[in-house]
Amino acid sequence: MALRFAHPAPEAYAYPLLIRHLLHSALDARSGQEIVGSDGRRHGYEALSQRVGRLAAVLAQHGVEPGDVVAVMDWDSHRYLEAYFAVPMMGAVLQTVNVRLSRDQIAYTLNDTRPRALIVHADFVAELEALRTALPDDCVVITCHDGTTAVVANSLGDYEALLASGSDTYDFVDFDENALATTFHTTGTTGLPKAVTFSHRQLVLHTLAVGLAMGQQPCEQGLWRGSVYMPVTPMFHVHAWGLPYVATLLGLKQVYPGRYVPARLLALKRDEGVTYSHCVPTILQMILDEVGPDARLGPWTVIIGGSALPESLLRAAAAVGITAVAGYGMSETGPVLTLSRHEDDDARPPEQVRRWAGRPIPLVQVHLQHENGDNVSDESGAQGEVVVRAPWLAQTYPNSAEAGAALWSGGWLHTQDVATREAAGDLVIRDRLKDVIKTGGEWVSSAEIEDLALRDPDIAEAAVVGAPDPRWGERPVVFAVAREGRTPRLQTLKDHMTPLVAAGQLSRWAAPDRLILIDALPRTSVGKIDKKALRLRLGDDVLDSRSF
Amino acid sequence: MALRFAHPAPEAYAYPLLIRHLLHSALDARSGQEIVGSDGRRHGYEALSQRVGRLAAVLAQHGVEPGDVVAVMDWDSHRYLEAYFAVPMMGAVLQTVNVRLSRDQIAYTLNDTRPRALIVHADFVAELEALRTALPDDCVVITCHDGTTAVVANSLGDYEALLASGSDTYDFVDFDENALATTFHTTGTTGLPKAVTFSHRQLVLHTLAVGLAMGQQPCEQGLWRGSVYMPVTPMFHVHAWGLPYVATLLGLKQVYPGRYVPARLLALKRDEGVTYSHCVPTILQMILDEVGPDARLGPWTVIIGGSALPESLLRAAAAVGITAVAGYGMSETGPVLTLSRHEDDDARPPEQVRRWAGRPIPLVQVHLQHENGDNVSDESGAQGEVVVRAPWLAQTYPNSAEAGAALWSGGWLHTQDVATREAAGDLVIRDRLKDVIKTGGEWVSSAEIEDLALRDPDIAEAAVVGAPDPRWGERPVVFAVAREGRTPRLQTLKDHMTPLVAAGQLSRWAAPDRLILIDALPRTSVGKIDKKALRLRLGDDVLDSRSF
Repeated sequence: MALRFAHPAPEAYAYPLLIRHLLHSALDARSGQEIVGSDGRRHGYEALSQRVGRLAAVLAQHGVEPGDVVAVMDWDSHRYLEAYFAVPMMGAVLQTVNVRLSRDQIAYTLNDTRPRALIVHADFVAELEALRTALPDDCVVITCHDGTTAVVANSLGDYEALLASGSDTYDFVDFDENALATTFHTTGTTGLPKAVTFSHRQLVLHTLAVGLAMGQQPCEQGLWRGSVYMPVTPMFHVHAWGLPYVATLLGLKQVYPGRYVPARLLALKRDEGVTYSHCVPTILQMILDEVGPDARLGPWTVIIGGSALPESLLRAAAAVGITAVAGYGMSETGPVLTLSRHEDDDARPPEQVRRWAGRPIPLVQVHLQHENGDNVSDESGAQGEVVVRAPWLAQTYPNSAEAGAALWSGGWLHTQDVATREAAGDLVIRDRLKDVIKTGGEWVSSAEIEDLALRDPDIAEAAVVGAPDPRWGERPVVFAVAREGRTPRLQTLKDHMTPLVAAGQLSRWAAPDRLILIDALPRTSVGKIDKKALRLRLGDDVLDSRSF
Repeated sequence: MALRFAHPAPEAYAYPLLIRHLLHSALDARSGQEIVGSDGRRHGYEALSQRVGRLAAVLAQHGVEPGDVVAVMDWDSHRYLEAYFAVPMMGAVLQTVNVRLSRDQIAYTLNDTRPRALIVHADFVAELEALRTALPDDCVVITCHDGTTAVVANSLGDYEALLASGSDTYDFVDFDENALATTFHTTGTTGLPKAVTFSHRQLVLHTLAVGLAMGQQPCEQGLWRGSVYMPVTPMFHVHAWGLPYVATLLGLKQVYPGRYVPARLLALKRDEGVTYSHCVPTILQMILDEVGPDARLGPWTVIIGGSALPESLLRAAAAVGITAVAGYGMSETGPVLTLSRHEDDDARPPEQVRRWAGRPIPLVQVHLQHENGDNVSDESGAQGEVVVRAPWLAQTYPNSAEAGAALWSGGWLHTQDVATREAAGDLVIRDRLKDVIKTGGEWVSSAEIEDLALRDPDIAEAAVVGAPDPRWGERPVVFAVAREGRTPRLQTLKDHMTPLVAAGQLSRWAAPDRLILIDALPRTSVGKIDKKALRLRLGDDVLDSRSF
């Protein structure tokens, strides 16, 4: 029998895993649901598909070709969803620019990718003028807004006007499923922001596995075809954790809130019947602050990532009817690796709930490793670095082969998070190997703050760590050794930082909250500053490190 | 920027889509659930993984190499589940032998694949002696049983004894995801049974999409991690519609019933808390006959495929708490293409429920085509052949390149089923292309005439086929089984149709020319009416094609 050697039929369709298929199969299933736009517009999936075609036609008309980068600086909008599809579907690469970075960092990322087109919200037009020098000369600019407008020199025009005048058809063709679809920069590593990239195949597989995992949850908290989805994690942040692709594949009703304003989020939640969202703990806290403890918001499942979910927040959310489900992952992992199983909450000690990451979603393999690369024993309590495999992990840092090699040392992606695994299979994040601070869902480099602290003539030595913070997840704290005869002061440090923030050279989240004087910095046996010992002084033996 | 040209890190794991990953990720998620075997044994997922390793070790020890075929003739058992994993995971090809075929047909299929090993249940040992000549001389035989035993000449021994004595470790390695994983023969085509094959990639993607679709159903009928799964579709039948792979990936409790005995199925359902199954309408009817109308079996979601779901059966199932969900597909399609949305039932006319196939599951694209390959218009009621694309469709018939080319004519897989699409997106199967009667240039649905014939109180069963006609091309002929003591008459049938024709509800070409009385309708091995046999009586050799 020629089983093994049979050639496919000449016209057999091999079906590459392309983002276009996520959209087409939603259309074929005729969801009948609506996309509610950030500007109040609402339209069905047929219109979504037409708008995706029109966006591609506009971009192509203005010179965007397969392989080119198209950058977006926008709030969470229907436009962003359209770019999630149109740009990769035409073979171009979507760059999701982190608009919360400092101006210099944004310029760095744009200079790194050399976009051929930029779609920019009116709110960032002031930045844009300063960013022009970072953009290639032939980069076309499309502006957009949700009611406000701004005049932009040398812009092609307004997004909606261009779509309205654009061609109604764009002939999307198939190509290799390993073609790049998206790129963005992660600041969750040491040094300069690093680009990561994801292919069509990776994003399609992430979509399937995340949708499958979310559909497996108990019915009152699971994602199903009656769910109404609203992102409350920025769409520049690791594809809003992949959910816009999942929601589109499943043909769900989707609600795009624009810039996050707690009152508006709550109005949309109520008026549009939102039942499924995701956000970082800081945003969940803001929402809870807005409504007060007597509100009734359920049913509303909110996936919480970005940093650990404090038990108090979990309880406060539950009290108003929100089911908070913890997730874990990072930029390099697409991002979802694990999801918690919510019904287990009350069975476990608060200390664990706080750092609890859940169990691997389908196709994810997780090992805990010793420093020498051996797996830790399987018994409960054994601690090791979380190393993972999944079909959607960044395969390198394109501009840093060395960092890419370290990321994949031994054939497993190194998260640099330290965890234990409970008997039931849940990961509990215990510590972080990498030296970065996560505040309000954004990474801040401790090295950068240390550099600035060392410019203070009163400071001889400095080390910065993140201190747990109920609102922000973490806040930077400076441990400083004084120069002889001098007395370092927090305010001096902050005064020094203010102009840098104003000039866009430093994130406004980087200004430290506390300065702690210390006689000498603790050091490890090899002479490195022992940040774990510093964290212990802050009354917590763990840093929490989750990146997605 | 070197985005497009970045090489993966040297040790980056590309993660081929292999069946081994379905098992490994279940283990990583620590389901804590059990597999309940057909012999009463029960064990967890760790033990499943060990047994899969031992089975591979036994097969390898006895000469099975990558690329070899390992055939299985068994009822629905824990052993079959182990073979679903062990055989493909070692790079060999699992042949799921349809034990309901005639001995000659089974011999044909074994002779076609030349297996290197055969795992055979004691119940088929009598067949085996006659099948020996069809097996290669070096084919090793492993016997198994669920309490009974049988002496088999030249057998390696008993499955459980071999596993117990086998090596505890087998080093499964990665290979190309396009490697073949499974094969079986479909009889749903013209001519001799044809082998179809599925690759690792295809099965992994089918698993993800089916699990995703089933998880999206409303909570009382959806598949979730608390579901308890029991197959009631033979595991030789298109991988039991893929559910054993889905159940394993999700770490569900699984119950394997062995040979189907209605009382035993019901006892397992009750004692093990089964909530999720699948079967053909005939089996569902047997189960309902066994319990009587006052039973309470819910919650029990049962996916119904294989043939259309009669409205009466849907209602009878609902009355005892079974949620019957229609599925559609065929052997060549892995098999699942569509699933119905149960809550819509009551909104649609009974005539439609009967043939209703639901909506495409994720990644499936469905078009309805005219004979010339054009898509039919999108308006409700337009009828065309269902042609599909999905990432898991058989790419050819390995032993019949010509039939494979016809299957994929124009780049879409031709199901040979004729359907309409409702505004809400549901496919309604109207007929089979081979089973559609073309008379005077017009298509007439044999199913529609059958429906009318069954309203005749003299007729117990009816089947309609097209008879070649020199003037009209084809003319409908009714084969009818009389109710006891009655005599069906052609004129009665025609009289019944006349007002419907006058009212425009029936084509005037639909009135049959002949009524042939028959003692019983011929049926295929899976219980479908064998229209090929009926046509043969009229001098035609066309077969019927819808297999899942």
